[in-house]
Amino acid sequence: MDLKTFPLCLACLCSALFTLASVTSADKDSHLSYQLKKEIVNHQDDANKIIDFLTKGPGKQQVYNRLATFVDTYGSRIAGSANLERAIDYMLDELDKDKLDNVHGEEVQVTHWVRGEESARMLLPRNYSIALLGLGGSVGTPPDGITAEVLVVRSFDELHDQASKAKGKIVVFNERWVDYETSVIYRTHGAAEVAKVGGVASLIRSVTPFSIYSPHTGWQDYEQGVEKIPTACITVEDAEMMARMAARGTKIVINLKMAAKTLPPAVSRNTVAEIEGSVYPEQVVLVSGHLDSWDVGQGAMDDGGGAFISWQALSVIRQLNLKPKRTMRMVLWTGEEEGLLGAEQYYNRHKENASNFSLVMESDIGTFMPEGISFTGGEKAVAIMREVMSLLKPINVTNLRVENVGGDITFWVRDGVPGGVLDNANSKYFYFHHSNGDTMTVQDPDAMDLCAAVWAVVAYTVADLDELLPRD
Amino acid sequence: MDLKTFPLCLACLCSALFTLASVTSADKDSHLSYQLKKEIVNHQDDANKIIDFLTKGPGKQQVYNRLATFVDTYGSRIAGSANLERAIDYMLDELDKDKLDNVHGEEVQVTHWVRGEESARMLLPRNYSIALLGLGGSVGTPPDGITAEVLVVRSFDELHDQASKAKGKIVVFNERWVDYETSVIYRTHGAAEVAKVGGVASLIRSVTPFSIYSPHTGWQDYEQGVEKIPTACITVEDAEMMARMAARGTKIVINLKMAAKTLPPAVSRNTVAEIEGSVYPEQVVLVSGHLDSWDVGQGAMDDGGGAFISWQALSVIRQLNLKPKRTMRMVLWTGEEEGLLGAEQYYNRHKENASNFSLVMESDIGTFMPEGISFTGGEKAVAIMREVMSLLKPINVTNLRVENVGGDITFWVRDGVPGGVLDNANSKYFYFHHSNGDTMTVQDPDAMDLCAAVWAVVAYTVADLDELLPRD
Repeated sequence: MDLKTFPLCLACLCSALFTLASVTSADKDSHLSYQLKKEIVNHQDDANKIIDFLTKGPGKQQVYNRLATFVDTYGSRIAGSANLERAIDYMLDELDKDKLDNVHGEEVQVTHWVRGEESARMLLPRNYSIALLGLGGSVGTPPDGITAEVLVVRSFDELHDQASKAKGKIVVFNERWVDYETSVIYRTHGAAEVAKVGGVASLIRSVTPFSIYSPHTGWQDYEQGVEKIPTACITVEDAEMMARMAARGTKIVINLKMAAKTLPPAVSRNTVAEIEGSVYPEQVVLVSGHLDSWDVGQGAMDDGGGAFISWQALSVIRQLNLKPKRTMRMVLWTGEEEGLLGAEQYYNRHKENASNFSLVMESDIGTFMPEGISFTGGEKAVAIMREVMSLLKPINVTNLRVENVGGDITFWVRDGVPGGVLDNANSKYFYFHHSNGDTMTVQDPDAMDLCAAVWAVVAYTVADLDELLPRD
Repeated sequence: MDLKTFPLCLACLCSALFTLASVTSADKDSHLSYQLKKEIVNHQDDANKIIDFLTKGPGKQQVYNRLATFVDTYGSRIAGSANLERAIDYMLDELDKDKLDNVHGEEVQVTHWVRGEESARMLLPRNYSIALLGLGGSVGTPPDGITAEVLVVRSFDELHDQASKAKGKIVVFNERWVDYETSVIYRTHGAAEVAKVGGVASLIRSVTPFSIYSPHTGWQDYEQGVEKIPTACITVEDAEMMARMAARGTKIVINLKMAAKTLPPAVSRNTVAEIEGSVYPEQVVLVSGHLDSWDVGQGAMDDGGGAFISWQALSVIRQLNLKPKRTMRMVLWTGEEEGLLGAEQYYNRHKENASNFSLVMESDIGTFMPEGISFTGGEKAVAIMREVMSLLKPINVTNLRVENVGGDITFWVRDGVPGGVLDNANSKYFYFHHSNGDTMTVQDPDAMDLCAAVWAVVAYTVADLDELLPRD
């Protein structure tokens, strides 16, 4: 990484100390040809232009302001809703006004679940209104609700141990927060497991490490051949309270009312725009986030931020009039929350073109301070990406973490296309996730500018290389 | 503080290194006689018994469990409510069962404000339900509510600058969080200021540094001769959203409905119990917290924690069968949230006895990890209290901060009685304050044991000294 270690005779080839340092560093741990390294390093000027435009030029706070206008105008955007379609219409119009290429929607069949009115009232040991959010896909209750005694458990193991007591009960899961992947199984599978032992409904402690009496919704999966029972999330506070009551031997009775229902599938759209490639227009670097959200909060974090930095990545390239060799394509997925519906249908429609995809990227775990990119790809691609990330030294976001990435881009990654997701300082992400707390208040304009800079520099540089990212 | 600096000839008087160190330390910065120092240091054994009982003996988690049972059973306890009186009856019964002395209630006239149904619906620019909590003492709206355009301001200065635009408007305060004392004036005085410029209602951004879409209620003060208009708090998120909308020139219209009303004053009770003094029963060390709460959450933090460590301070002394010379009196105030009503009436009833009060203590800013005591008193009393705090070295909570303390004990402190409040690691206190997030979930059993240990050691030791704390 030190300039002194680099042969002086080559120094004249490089226009800046910074450029030199980058090439030197790449030498040590990559399989890159000098030519390829140089090709990447030569993008430092463009990278600097992008960074400056977004952090101190006309693009400063543009992405934050665009997102704020959007979420303040449309609020939450659940799949199947007329509101999501209005929001998509607005986006198509804005993308057109932003002079992007090939702006269009691509139709997607989406699940159409509607929450309806819902309430949970504790009748015993005292009259108390329990905050709740029905879980996506849940069936409703009869109009008068379900009134039943409560069984509180901490785990599926405890549920199975107490199976004989569960019949006719509303089961409350007071599962421990471990991490999202571990704890979310109670949200996704709680209802099915309760139904198997004869329970009549399930109330799941919200999947979050921290709460200010905030319920967090999310999708849940019934099982084929298992009765569908109503299911909702409640707050950490109420789950813990009922666990304490139960431990004292106090009888708890709840009346649960949910008017939730699943309507016939609806048509939504993935939102697409491009910077058309100047040399290989048929070849693609894809950046993405999802435009749909849960029906609470503003969907500003999940995934307004990811969607809008993806737009911004293209926007800054157009505003700077840069011309990548390859097409930069933005896709804003729809129906992500109901199970990657837009992403899967997009893949099925375009997969025969997979060999033309150089890199697929998604941001869907926050747009807090960027920390780098997590990347799935072969050794050579990793080496190239490390070099590309070094272009982000001016904002100190050069980290490339090699690991399996998923989400909406998972279909392409499984198919061998290199994939990247945005790492960021998202330690509070699950405080807000799928709750009314997912609003613009969590977004920081400067952090969003930096996220957009990472997104734009990486996508543009990879799109502008002579070759597609290698797959071996 | 070093043992080596202490004359060896005195060492034989002391039974432990710990004791020695304490006496040594006191030498440097106090006006204490050797006799008084020794008297305090000789309480180290009792202090250790108290600490051990609470942190590893039969008292471990007792205060947490007692508080959890109480708040789970009664929930929130607003002044004037039958529920608060049932909760007081329960406490009197428990204090009797705990074999404390002179257990009784003392009647207090309290304000009886009732929230009733309330809603705020944004009609323009889009249909949206705004979370709110009416502020204590607020008048209601007509049954159909008040429908008016919104004016958003950041400060009273901005309100006055825009006074000509405020007539007929619902004014939204999007004040910045600075600290509680600075920012709370918008909650307490917002309605009056808005009424003076012809506004029809005020919605105040909740007074908190952090939000997960959580409204925070609290008392507010109308002004004599100024029209009483309805007032409520809204979330940080919605206040910020409306500020952004207004900055874009978007017209905002809200329908605000509040059925809030003030009923005739009701009778409540301060809850009193004692460890009667063995030598000077008429002389008192008072420990306190308030038992009433807002009508949201569980009032577990504000001020269940303070109330229950005050009970625990007496309870541990009785359970250990310790006999302080002076009376330890616990008072659990009522009607604190409506303006220190119970505390003021208690003072008026007992003030002729002020010269018999050695020390008054209150815990009402959290029972998180204890950090020490803030203390108001003369130089000699400070020196004694520093020595008393050194008895808490085993749990490393020896800090005495000299400053003006207030709250429920303010009447006594103004009268010259030394006063102390519990300092604790309460940096998140206002995350939960006056919101549905004020529940047992914020309490940690081990932290509560340590708070109770601080409370008990200080109150017991001061109650057991030969002399009252000096006032000069």
